[in-house]
Amino acid sequence: MENSQAQFYCPGFQFSGMYAGIKKNGLKDLGLIYSQHPATIAGLFTQNIVQAAPVIIDKQKLDIGVAHAVIVNSGNANCCTGDQGLADAHAMCQSVAEALQIDAKHVFAASTGVIGQYLNIQAVKDAMPTLTDQLSENNLHLLAEAIMTTDTIPKTAGKRVHIGDKSFHICATAKGAGMIRPNMATLLNFVCTDIQADQQDLQHCFQASINQSMNIITIDGDTSTNDTALILANGLSGLSLTDPNVRNAFQEALDDLLLGLAKALVKDGEGANKLVEIAVKGASSVSDAQKIADTVAHSNLVKTAIFGEDANWGRILAACGRAGVSFDPLNLAIQFNDVTIFEKGSYCGEQAEKEVSAILKKPEYSIVIDLKKGTYGHSMFTCDFSYDYVRINADYRS
Amino acid sequence: MENSQAQFYCPGFQFSGMYAGIKKNGLKDLGLIYSQHPATIAGLFTQNIVQAAPVIIDKQKLDIGVAHAVIVNSGNANCCTGDQGLADAHAMCQSVAEALQIDAKHVFAASTGVIGQYLNIQAVKDAMPTLTDQLSENNLHLLAEAIMTTDTIPKTAGKRVHIGDKSFHICATAKGAGMIRPNMATLLNFVCTDIQADQQDLQHCFQASINQSMNIITIDGDTSTNDTALILANGLSGLSLTDPNVRNAFQEALDDLLLGLAKALVKDGEGANKLVEIAVKGASSVSDAQKIADTVAHSNLVKTAIFGEDANWGRILAACGRAGVSFDPLNLAIQFNDVTIFEKGSYCGEQAEKEVSAILKKPEYSIVIDLKKGTYGHSMFTCDFSYDYVRINADYRS
Repeated sequence: MENSQAQFYCPGFQFSGMYAGIKKNGLKDLGLIYSQHPATIAGLFTQNIVQAAPVIIDKQKLDIGVAHAVIVNSGNANCCTGDQGLADAHAMCQSVAEALQIDAKHVFAASTGVIGQYLNIQAVKDAMPTLTDQLSENNLHLLAEAIMTTDTIPKTAGKRVHIGDKSFHICATAKGAGMIRPNMATLLNFVCTDIQADQQDLQHCFQASINQSMNIITIDGDTSTNDTALILANGLSGLSLTDPNVRNAFQEALDDLLLGLAKALVKDGEGANKLVEIAVKGASSVSDAQKIADTVAHSNLVKTAIFGEDANWGRILAACGRAGVSFDPLNLAIQFNDVTIFEKGSYCGEQAEKEVSAILKKPEYSIVIDLKKGTYGHSMFTCDFSYDYVRINADYRS
Repeated sequence: MENSQAQFYCPGFQFSGMYAGIKKNGLKDLGLIYSQHPATIAGLFTQNIVQAAPVIIDKQKLDIGVAHAVIVNSGNANCCTGDQGLADAHAMCQSVAEALQIDAKHVFAASTGVIGQYLNIQAVKDAMPTLTDQLSENNLHLLAEAIMTTDTIPKTAGKRVHIGDKSFHICATAKGAGMIRPNMATLLNFVCTDIQADQQDLQHCFQASINQSMNIITIDGDTSTNDTALILANGLSGLSLTDPNVRNAFQEALDDLLLGLAKALVKDGEGANKLVEIAVKGASSVSDAQKIADTVAHSNLVKTAIFGEDANWGRILAACGRAGVSFDPLNLAIQFNDVTIFEKGSYCGEQAEKEVSAILKKPEYSIVIDLKKGTYGHSMFTCDFSYDYVRINADYRS
């Protein structure tokens, strides 16, 4: 998994991305995935009850279970746009269907950007000849660029896994940066694979992978109206999920790939400088561990202290204390990586603080919270909260 | 209610405040309330399960129900300080008891500041002669200054209410600024009154007032380990809460006074420039209205947009949608003061946006969210999220 412009690909899938005129800043804003063969599709969507037009139409199309293309724009969320928004989302799919001579009900759509403004649908239509001309197996990076909003780096990932004399591929892209919190798929995420799968198996594997990747990251605690994660499987590898060996290998590869992408999203969070794992252990249940990890990962006071490289373990403890979980503060331990700063009700002293201060200067580290009650644990990934988060979000629409 | 240095007072109560050497910056850090007569006391404390030493000892003393003095320091929370912390909290009370020749079990303590560092108890002891010499009915403002941490303005309030030929007084101070979220009394708040009351009635009135004041404000969503709200009633007015007329007048006065102080806390929140009411109406239940108000009031994306004076109603709608409340987004309306920006699933256009932009430049306004489902409502007060919040909290301990 890399986040460079490495040419990740998957046989049978073509990609393109371009500037169509939706964004004000002239950066790429329209992307396309084309599956040359009809592909099984599975998907996960935002849990927000305010849902963008493309989310609404995708959820309907998912019942059919077959995809030929996915059209994505950035710069406009096409959300809270009423009947006009739904018509525009359908028109996006229709344009692709006509250009590629496929059925519009096999074309999925996704949007990301400002909420509440109408999409420039004419720009989408006008872009179609160029967008389809550019389609190539080697253009995943163009799609990755076209779905960026406040992201600063395009994120792609890929894998090829050999099983006997055959192999399967997975390639993927994702965007995040803001309105990110663990609640299904809080972002855009597109995965292409040549595995053979029916929709139910594909959905099951995808959900499991998302649960241990996109659903354990947070940037700012807000969830989007446009979150869409789609996986397309065209079957070209000849390897099927009905084979337990294949399924295990596929799940492992997908888990690894999506966790890598999820971490890349946090690293490129709005204004983020740090990727920090909040690792809770010694809890009486997974649910308790999740509650504490979630509360600490979302605490603005913890996140500003991370930004300030300040070993303010008191704020971590205070956040644990309001998580709705019963524990004995005198029994809990807090570590930064392997250095304990608080234990048995007491601060561990200046030598420990000195070592922790050095860890805090690193771009990536773990905060380990050990409740010493039970054997359950849960990890989340969060970032710091910086001046740049405020700057980016104070004037996002202008 | 004013937040200036107006000389609010209550007969029979004396106050003082001074620099004792706890803070690094030389600002006042030690305050005292002395009730010349034994006063009934009621109190509310943080719901965080990590609790500071003074909170632990106050809760024990509350069973006795009588107070003669309250000693408060800022600059150090005396939290997560183990047995030493408890001994220090008791020593604070003991010093006051000796200086004023009263019983230490009638002396309450409160602390606010950095978590996890031992209190300089010698500085507290050394300060006692000066602190008690300064006691005066007219020194509430010195106490108000002494309890400040990142607050920029001391907050005091007072009222005198006439009933027939008698009158009662209430005077109060509070501090807030950070680690503020509605969950009991998320701050320090001290109220003195000359009403006659038993502890149960006083507790009941105080809880009701706190619920509609300190419990409906938020600054950053974190709750403190040191939250303490105490009310002392010395009975000198000769007016008793057992008289329904007196009780009604007292409740009304206390409600009004504490709501004013609560708003003053939000206005002086860390880095805050705006005081914004999130007013939810048309909900199917109070609980639904509370959930939506709470989610919007805590959304970092809404709060940064308020800072940026950006009419980003899409973020408000998106926050409503993740509050865990069922509603029809097409039926909801969003207003800034009396200007509707979103209604019947649609944006209300550029004229409305222009008017809203003018409202957003004001220091105080309301965001009204009408679910148009039922008849219940709930309001919360929040502030913007600025660069200064990040600056203040990135290096709070240094």
